[in-house]
Amino acid sequence: MPDVVAVDLGGTNIRAARVDASGKVLVRDKTATLAEEGMQAVARRLADLVQRVRGSGTVGIGIGTPGTPDPVTGVMKSRAVNIPDSQGYPLCPELTRVTGLPACADNDGNLAGLGEHWLGAGRGESIVLIFTLGTGIGGGFVIDGHVYHGHSNLGTEFGHLCIDLNGRACPCGCNGCLEAYASAAAVGRDVREALAKGGREAEASLLWKLCDGDINKADSKLLCDAARDGDAFAGRLLDTSCDYLAAGIGALLNATNPSCVILGGGMALAGEVVLERVRKCLGKNRAYAPIWRDCKLVSATLGDDAGLLGAARFAFQRVGVTG
Amino acid sequence: MPDVVAVDLGGTNIRAARVDASGKVLVRDKTATLAEEGMQAVARRLADLVQRVRGSGTVGIGIGTPGTPDPVTGVMKSRAVNIPDSQGYPLCPELTRVTGLPACADNDGNLAGLGEHWLGAGRGESIVLIFTLGTGIGGGFVIDGHVYHGHSNLGTEFGHLCIDLNGRACPCGCNGCLEAYASAAAVGRDVREALAKGGREAEASLLWKLCDGDINKADSKLLCDAARDGDAFAGRLLDTSCDYLAAGIGALLNATNPSCVILGGGMALAGEVVLERVRKCLGKNRAYAPIWRDCKLVSATLGDDAGLLGAARFAFQRVGVTG
Repeated sequence: MPDVVAVDLGGTNIRAARVDASGKVLVRDKTATLAEEGMQAVARRLADLVQRVRGSGTVGIGIGTPGTPDPVTGVMKSRAVNIPDSQGYPLCPELTRVTGLPACADNDGNLAGLGEHWLGAGRGESIVLIFTLGTGIGGGFVIDGHVYHGHSNLGTEFGHLCIDLNGRACPCGCNGCLEAYASAAAVGRDVREALAKGGREAEASLLWKLCDGDINKADSKLLCDAARDGDAFAGRLLDTSCDYLAAGIGALLNATNPSCVILGGGMALAGEVVLERVRKCLGKNRAYAPIWRDCKLVSATLGDDAGLLGAARFAFQRVGVTG
Repeated sequence: MPDVVAVDLGGTNIRAARVDASGKVLVRDKTATLAEEGMQAVARRLADLVQRVRGSGTVGIGIGTPGTPDPVTGVMKSRAVNIPDSQGYPLCPELTRVTGLPACADNDGNLAGLGEHWLGAGRGESIVLIFTLGTGIGGGFVIDGHVYHGHSNLGTEFGHLCIDLNGRACPCGCNGCLEAYASAAAVGRDVREALAKGGREAEASLLWKLCDGDINKADSKLLCDAARDGDAFAGRLLDTSCDYLAAGIGALLNATNPSCVILGGGMALAGEVVLERVRKCLGKNRAYAPIWRDCKLVSATLGDDAGLLGAARFAFQRVGVTG
């Protein structure tokens, strides 16, 4: 069976895996990114890693990274993570020159969606939207098992759906972006603000206890923990955050009629305590009923491997092996 | 050259045209819909019309209608216009039985997008979004010259993008839908409300003069006329309506990175007086700058024929003739 080498180029580490056409991981390895040494040094380490991981049946390389590599040429259209001189760097051509293998690259949010479709929560689904809830909110749109890239490979910025046209300013330059309300970072800010306001209920809450009265310790994870344990104060705060999220998800449901929406990233690890709230809001007034009826909302299941396995799938698609 | 018969099944008339593979209309004809006679009678009149319009080179039939026909089977999934018993009716199989020709059907909003992509404002574009501004707001999403249908053919309800999560209730059951702010009907309501409030500026405005002081005559068309003639009162009202529209368009731009957004329907006939305002808002704080830079915003150019020509294109695609 042919295999490919999948690479996750992150800010701290470069992770690689040799993956066969059934999705089985045969070998794993990693190396430090050392972004400060510049893109040429990073690319050399990446190529060395690929050479260590590849096997006699390896037919291609797939790379995922937070930037926007051109999925056709593999040239970095914007800066990759914190590597200063990565923009414009011909990552895939360079890798092909060194390894002799065809290489392709894509945004890691897109590839997380593709990975979840291939082997995770979106398996067998016709149209998948993935919202990755981290410091920001990433998006991925998978149609019939293929990543939707948009016209110039800049989509799919689901974190920048406007949910409140007179709302919070977002660093992207727009007003009322979903990310300013429902990313793990935004939820954390809202929680700390609510605790700072104080009041008897806040100070009597489990949430207050979980952060030892140190408001700066409060974040989206502690909020979900407290809500899961039945804390009413935390429950109401989480209701609001999940309603924000549902407003963004619902808008895109109405616009694209997917079969499956996947929540990934740190905040999705909280599981049902978030999912059940978002589902309730979607069913109430955040999505058009016939469209929501035909859709399911689930958590990602592949964790940190979603992007890596998506990179493998993307590489197989590029060399024409689609299982 | 092969041709197809394209049909526009509307509430008042059924229009048909024989169209060749270059998009040239060879013959046109129409008949009254007479919806009150029921779906079987409508289908019989539709079939008679097709038989009159078809020629010796006709290879298929394409039908557009406001409902949601299943694009594969041609069975009406929801009621077509105001024909009471149309839901579930096997329109395409019935037409094929009578005419001996393969038939396909699709939502007329989708087909307007396809028509504009084929022969109108979206020609040569890789990814097209169309917003049809009428009583409601219809949507269409064309990727590489093909209609995006969504998982269960219920997308693409661009009128039901949430732009204000605490905003106006929409008859669809959601809150803050674009349609409740920026459809021609909603804009007309806002204009009449502003005039009803009165005040010196309202009563001194050109808009007031254009509707002879009869507030009930005021609508989105008179608003655009007055704004085009430089009326400051109308201009400010139109600024607000166009900002609503830009919030919805911008959200979907950020989520899908299209090459082209087309405004169609009654309100788009106003042309630049609307377009320039929407562009200004998108450039200011309604879209992510790199995505907006790669996109153009234009008016539809095919008018009432967009859906009809889209139906022709859809029929050609179905029989495998794609010019």
